[in-house]
Amino acid sequence: MIGRLNHVAIAVKDIEAATRVYKETLGATVSAKVPQPEHGVYTVFVELPNTKIELLEPLGDDSTIQKFVDKNPDGGIHHVCYEVEDIIAARDQLVARGARVLGGGEPKIGAHGKPVLFLHPKDFCGTLVELEQV
Amino acid sequence: MIGRLNHVAIAVKDIEAATRVYKETLGATVSAKVPQPEHGVYTVFVELPNTKIELLEPLGDDSTIQKFVDKNPDGGIHHVCYEVEDIIAARDQLVARGARVLGGGEPKIGAHGKPVLFLHPKDFCGTLVELEQV
Repeated sequence: MIGRLNHVAIAVKDIEAATRVYKETLGATVSAKVPQPEHGVYTVFVELPNTKIELLEPLGDDSTIQKFVDKNPDGGIHHVCYEVEDIIAARDQLVARGARVLGGGEPKIGAHGKPVLFLHPKDFCGTLVELEQV
Repeated sequence: MIGRLNHVAIAVKDIEAATRVYKETLGATVSAKVPQPEHGVYTVFVELPNTKIELLEPLGDDSTIQKFVDKNPDGGIHHVCYEVEDIIAARDQLVARGARVLGGGEPKIGAHGKPVLFLHPKDFCGTLVELEQV
């Protein structure tokens, strides 16, 4: 069911400092910082040859990643995103196999403009998993 | 400097249960479980089209990941591994840029038989980073 690893998301308090780490220290290619108010985050993408690192900073008062960066002041890996061909079919298979889908189970449009769902970390090795239809 | 994302490592208490999650629930292709006593881990590789997920379970009394799984009983993302062409050149550049290399700074032979180094999470967005020469 799952295909490519679309991205690894790293949430931080200061996305500009994190961007410098990836650009200047690690020598990677990075995108511009983009506010995504509908998702409660700023994003910067680190472009690797085979996948992306998505840097996230909380935006707004009710950002879903605020609690994570409060708990992890140095930052940390927030989730991994796997690609699926058909997100509804994937969801239905996962639910049939006993996995929990977060947020009511209806796909939303994610930060890349594609339908996404998040899966319960307790069902996936303590890892928050995003599925993105590509 | 950094190239491909070689793998994302997920450390768990029970690698057989984690393998079932990736194989049966997420429908991915997984390798056999391999004991790597010299690294203090069992490994299973989840083969994705563009990269790998490395599942880890502690092996032996002084496994370096034992403390992590004690703190994270559901499991969790332990590190990310980026490929570099020349690990000594990469190390020297990183040190010159003020980053800390763990374990004395000399590369060791990693679980894939290639030279590896680990970088201090506090210098890399709260994320343990492995560099692997490929």
